[in-house]
Amino acid sequence: MEFSLGLDFGTSAARAVLLNVHTGEMVASGSSTYEGGDNGIFTDAQQPLLARQSPMAYMSALERATKMAVAQMEGRGLDVKSIIGIGVDATGSTPIPVKQDMRPLETLPEFKDNLNAYAWLWKDHTAVNEALAITQKASEIRPEYLRKCGGSYSSEWFWSKIWHCLKVDPTVFDAADSWLEQSDFIPATLAGITNVSLVKRNVCAAGHKAMYADVWGGLPDKEFLSALDPKLADLRDRLYHKAYVFEEIMGTLSADWAERLGIPEGTPIAVGALDAHVGAIGAGVGQGKFVKIIGTSTCDIMAFPLEQAPDDFDGVAGIVEGSVLPGHIGIEAGQAAVGDLLNWWVQQVLGKDAGYHAILTEKASQLKAGESGLLALDWNNGNRNILGDQRLSGLLLGQTLATKDYEIYRALIEATAFGALKIIKLVQAQGVQVKEVIATGGIGHKNELFMQLYADILGCRVKLVENPETVAIGAGIMAAVAVKKKTEGHANVNEMVESLSVACDRVYAPNDKAHVVYQKLFQLYTELHDGFGKDKEVRVYHLMKELIAIRENTLN
Amino acid sequence: MEFSLGLDFGTSAARAVLLNVHTGEMVASGSSTYEGGDNGIFTDAQQPLLARQSPMAYMSALERATKMAVAQMEGRGLDVKSIIGIGVDATGSTPIPVKQDMRPLETLPEFKDNLNAYAWLWKDHTAVNEALAITQKASEIRPEYLRKCGGSYSSEWFWSKIWHCLKVDPTVFDAADSWLEQSDFIPATLAGITNVSLVKRNVCAAGHKAMYADVWGGLPDKEFLSALDPKLADLRDRLYHKAYVFEEIMGTLSADWAERLGIPEGTPIAVGALDAHVGAIGAGVGQGKFVKIIGTSTCDIMAFPLEQAPDDFDGVAGIVEGSVLPGHIGIEAGQAAVGDLLNWWVQQVLGKDAGYHAILTEKASQLKAGESGLLALDWNNGNRNILGDQRLSGLLLGQTLATKDYEIYRALIEATAFGALKIIKLVQAQGVQVKEVIATGGIGHKNELFMQLYADILGCRVKLVENPETVAIGAGIMAAVAVKKKTEGHANVNEMVESLSVACDRVYAPNDKAHVVYQKLFQLYTELHDGFGKDKEVRVYHLMKELIAIRENTLN
Repeated sequence: MEFSLGLDFGTSAARAVLLNVHTGEMVASGSSTYEGGDNGIFTDAQQPLLARQSPMAYMSALERATKMAVAQMEGRGLDVKSIIGIGVDATGSTPIPVKQDMRPLETLPEFKDNLNAYAWLWKDHTAVNEALAITQKASEIRPEYLRKCGGSYSSEWFWSKIWHCLKVDPTVFDAADSWLEQSDFIPATLAGITNVSLVKRNVCAAGHKAMYADVWGGLPDKEFLSALDPKLADLRDRLYHKAYVFEEIMGTLSADWAERLGIPEGTPIAVGALDAHVGAIGAGVGQGKFVKIIGTSTCDIMAFPLEQAPDDFDGVAGIVEGSVLPGHIGIEAGQAAVGDLLNWWVQQVLGKDAGYHAILTEKASQLKAGESGLLALDWNNGNRNILGDQRLSGLLLGQTLATKDYEIYRALIEATAFGALKIIKLVQAQGVQVKEVIATGGIGHKNELFMQLYADILGCRVKLVENPETVAIGAGIMAAVAVKKKTEGHANVNEMVESLSVACDRVYAPNDKAHVVYQKLFQLYTELHDGFGKDKEVRVYHLMKELIAIRENTLN
Repeated sequence: MEFSLGLDFGTSAARAVLLNVHTGEMVASGSSTYEGGDNGIFTDAQQPLLARQSPMAYMSALERATKMAVAQMEGRGLDVKSIIGIGVDATGSTPIPVKQDMRPLETLPEFKDNLNAYAWLWKDHTAVNEALAITQKASEIRPEYLRKCGGSYSSEWFWSKIWHCLKVDPTVFDAADSWLEQSDFIPATLAGITNVSLVKRNVCAAGHKAMYADVWGGLPDKEFLSALDPKLADLRDRLYHKAYVFEEIMGTLSADWAERLGIPEGTPIAVGALDAHVGAIGAGVGQGKFVKIIGTSTCDIMAFPLEQAPDDFDGVAGIVEGSVLPGHIGIEAGQAAVGDLLNWWVQQVLGKDAGYHAILTEKASQLKAGESGLLALDWNNGNRNILGDQRLSGLLLGQTLATKDYEIYRALIEATAFGALKIIKLVQAQGVQVKEVIATGGIGHKNELFMQLYADILGCRVKLVENPETVAIGAGIMAAVAVKKKTEGHANVNEMVESLSVACDRVYAPNDKAHVVYQKLFQLYTELHDGFGKDKEVRVYHLMKELIAIRENTLN
């Protein structure tokens, strides 16, 4: 028996699993929250958009979680010597300013209370203006940069945050010899690397968050960065010129960390990756399998063979070679509000608590497809994909004087599913096969109606994978792939993901009759979507009339 | 001192007022509900659309209400001999089957328990199919009939109901020598008329409800009626050939009714009219004055001089010479859901009781124009005017994840005001001056925000007239006009309405700053209205973006 250690760094906690690399069985697990701040997040009442974390808190949580898993493993009579590799995923973009010797600035006495010297957590939005300026400048002089990241650069991403740091706290910026993504910092630290220049940066974070692409020579060029600020161009030299896929080995476990974790020194550590992508691996991503991580918003992850790749992919949030699976193009897309849309309805509008979701769901389950006569657009938080337009809003159509709260609730779920189908149709139109949808992330587990409506609307099987260890298991698979590649010179990644990923909890098949109705409604959704989402002439007159006709049909 | 007796027959009660015809002072009043049924309405559990009333219950309620007013008058030391005339208004179309001698069929022993022999109350909707068939036939062979009644004939109206009676209960149909509107039956009965052929039918009910117009020779021709059913063509001969304006005298109070009411025999009685129109008179309708009777739905009444009249008036519910004021064209329009739209939101969606209106109103009052970023269409119950299309539905646009229940509440009020402004703009475009709006009917009294938003959106003064006696006072004015015409050969109806109508409770003036914002929003409403209401190509892409821009502007 051989095992890999999967380490997952989420927003509030580290999680460790030990995975049997032949059977996929998870034999042990542990987790630990980050110390300090509010659930591990440091905030500032004066700056509501700020969210920072302590890099050292990651490492101490990792130690506690791993020891817990290792103790469990040993309790089952298994030998830690059978751990053959370590895989790590983390949130991102979560850049950390470091010294050349890899010490985070946070650990220097002069910066110990300065949040700008901490990790800039993915959901820190202080760099809104910088993101707009980067998007603007790129659209002027480097439009190709935007084409691989959905048309606009985000305030959540690498360059926005570092530039913001330069503007608001140049002392921190100047003190940083380099910046590391959380997903690079942790495996590099475990490997005992003491020169930041030697860290193998992961292409998942580099490609999706830092505008890295081999076709234009790695990171954005210095002319472009200089146009933002010359100091960013200087920084480029202190970052990296090449990024790696997780099938590469970052290094081996240092003596120090071997002792702290109770795992043999020299255990290989794979290059890191971002948690969403690794969650998709744990859930079984592969050809024809579209993974949806559904929570407050939705992140879609796909991977398809390099040889099938078009150059660019209009309308998705990101397209990066090797970001999901080695030898594959990774595609990321998403919807800006899914769980949030339902929470909005229940909490902000109806003024009810979370328990009311179940009541609405129960009543909404009694309705037939089309019976409410309603149609909504899921744009209360803008449209991330496929329009990439924040200046959009929600829309509800078809209400009568008899329309009830639970009918609108159902229409909102349907709207998110129609939005999901728009993305699926888009990637299909560009050659990506979608045979089934794998849903993970939390919402599906709570709501059977939600899952069934997705199956009915998408018209394909929707598998539910809700194991809370899914992401960490994905990290364990990463390690298994990297070690196999290293020892045997080749790893069939598709086969390994297929056999080691988490089993699904339940499969939802489409109801044919409902699907027929939803095909009609999707056509109407598409007309609304294109009318309000694209600047062109349209006809909308027939929409209300067709909704009434569909409703009347369900009553006969 | 001289007084007129105004008698108003509403849906559940009769009301009597005594009006000083020189000062406009109301010196006495009385009211009494109709006996029998549910609040005076007879229903049938098997036929939810059915609503009937007892004609004899009208007369006994009238007696009680009038005696109450007369006693009050005498209690003030005033002499009943100073009552110079009687005016009557009633609901409609509320046709009553009668014998040639004016006895309602209800009074015959064989029909005493047959609701088809009773008065068919305005809100009886059993004749839906007949209304559709009449509209269809008219559009084929008599399109001119539809042009004066807003493009479709209603199930609430005269011919639909009588034809339905013929179909479901031919015995009643055959037993009826004629049919009288409630607004004709009551004044004719008071006048002791015992031959239905001598009743002066009022043009208000005839024109708005029975497709009567002088230009085509009165009621619909026999060829048209035969195409519906030959028995309807036969009935035409037993109805009437000419209809009258209320400045005409129906007759004088009979000895019998003089004794029952305690009012001198021989008192002149004016020709009748419909309650909405008479309410407008009580509220001061006249040139430049647009009266809105705002309740669950809205009825708009206007009058303008004959010489300014276009032949037809697209988009309003009815246009009838003399139906509101003698010598004027009367125009009726309406919105299908106003109070109902707000009740829908509070009760059907939010699940709250009526008291929640005040809470939402209080919060919504804190918002600036445009601040919610929302825009709605007020079509949850279709659009009565100006589109005349039942197959429309509600629409809400602009919601974000922060949108609150009270913001939507305000957007719904605004939508009804935009709908009202569409009607005003339409009549203005056809030459009718609108200088101020007079609101009556109930909703304005309860909701200051509602009134202020109407002023801000309509961009003119909105006067509130909420006296519960407004309609009965209008009937008193009718009597004063008819008597003056009779005794002096001429009555200046505009002056008399001006001096005798009810004083307004409050005047709401538009806030200039808000009006500027609402002009922009009305433009967007119009684009939505035309896009979903008319079959043509439109652009809607900019709507969400402009709403966001308007919202952002209010926050600066």
